[in-house]
Amino acid sequence: MSIKTLTLYNFNTSYSFGKEEKKEKEQSLTSKLARLKDSYEKEGLRKAVEGIIIIHDHGHPHILLLQDNNYFKLPGGKLKPGENEIDGLIRKLTKKLSPTGTPVSDAPWEIGDHVSTWWRPNFEPSLFPYIPSHITKPKECKKLFVVTLPEKCKFAVSNNLSLIAVSLYEIYNNSQRYGAVISSIPALISRYTFVYLNVD
Amino acid sequence: MSIKTLTLYNFNTSYSFGKEEKKEKEQSLTSKLARLKDSYEKEGLRKAVEGIIIIHDHGHPHILLLQDNNYFKLPGGKLKPGENEIDGLIRKLTKKLSPTGTPVSDAPWEIGDHVSTWWRPNFEPSLFPYIPSHITKPKECKKLFVVTLPEKCKFAVSNNLSLIAVSLYEIYNNSQRYGAVISSIPALISRYTFVYLNVD
Repeated sequence: MSIKTLTLYNFNTSYSFGKEEKKEKEQSLTSKLARLKDSYEKEGLRKAVEGIIIIHDHGHPHILLLQDNNYFKLPGGKLKPGENEIDGLIRKLTKKLSPTGTPVSDAPWEIGDHVSTWWRPNFEPSLFPYIPSHITKPKECKKLFVVTLPEKCKFAVSNNLSLIAVSLYEIYNNSQRYGAVISSIPALISRYTFVYLNVD
Repeated sequence: MSIKTLTLYNFNTSYSFGKEEKKEKEQSLTSKLARLKDSYEKEGLRKAVEGIIIIHDHGHPHILLLQDNNYFKLPGGKLKPGENEIDGLIRKLTKKLSPTGTPVSDAPWEIGDHVSTWWRPNFEPSLFPYIPSHITKPKECKKLFVVTLPEKCKFAVSNNLSLIAVSLYEIYNNSQRYGAVISSIPALISRYTFVYLNVD
C-alpha cells in the first residue's frame, strides 16, 4: 500500500453551510445506550460506519465534526442489516450533512480507505481499537473511513447541531475533549500526503 | 483499500530469543538529539523507518518492543541517503534483531503497509503525526510499517536491551509509559483482521 495523496479544499471558500429541521434521535448517552440494548436484542451486533471528512484551513488539515453542546461526533451511523459499508456511509452522510431531499446519487462524498475499527465490549460508553480478550460478544463495531470532498458542495445540518472544522493540532492528544476515537485521527491519517488547494 | 487479514504466530512457541554483543550507539536522549543535530547539519532531514512487528499471545495481538531500562522503542533506524524505505527497514531490523551475520537475504521480516508518519519539528523529544503549521523545516520524519513474521525465526538483540512482547491493551491509552507513537499503534492496526495460529 503506497503513500497516498489526498487533495483538500479550503473550508472557508469552498463550502456553504445551512441548518434545517432534521429528525434527530435523542442524543443523551443514556438514551443511546438504551437504543443499543434494544437493537442488540433484536439484531445482535450493532454495525456502524463514520466518515473522517478532511478539508483544510490555511494549509493545515481539519476534520469536520458535529457538535452538540459539549459533545463532538463524527458524522455517520448504523448500517441496515446486510447493508454494504460504503453505501451505508454515503446514505448516512447524505442524511445528516446534505440539504433535505438531496438524492444519494448526488452525494459529494468521496469515500476513501477504511482506516480504523472500534469495538464496544458492553452496553457502556467505552470503545476500544481491539476486542478485549475476555469479550466474546461485543455489542458494537464501528468502522472509520477517510472521506474527501469535491471543490464545491452544500451542507445542511440539524438545527440543534453545529458542523465545525477542527484542526489536527486541536484534536491531537486531546481525548479528554474529543474522546479516544476522534483524538486518534491525526495518527490514523498521518500516512497520507496532503495537497492543499485554494489556500489563500 | 479492503480489510486486510494478517496471520499471527504464537510468541511463546514460534520464536527463539538470544542476546549478543552488538554495537549500539549511546541511547540517552541528550546524545540522540546531539547526533540528530550533527547529521541535520550535514544531510538535512533525518529519515527513519520503524517496524510494528505483530505476533500474538493467547489469541491477543502483541507488539515486539526493544526495552532499555524504562525506555521502550520500536526496532528500526535511520535510512542511508537515497535508500529505499523497505530495503532500509529490512536492513535495520536484521541488524538489530537477527543473530549477527544473518544476511539480509535471509531476513524473516514480512514488510506490510506504511501506517503512520511522525515528524520532529525541532531538536527536541516531541514527535507529531503532522507537521505543525508554523514549522517549515522539520528535523526528522519517521515512518512506521506493519511487519509480520513467518512461523519460525531466531532473534538476537544487544546485551543491554530486551526484546519484549507487549499486548495492545497494555499499550493502548498508555502514552505516559510508551510515548505517543507506540501508544497510537492499537488504533493504527485496528483495521486489520487477525488470524491467530498455534494459539494453544
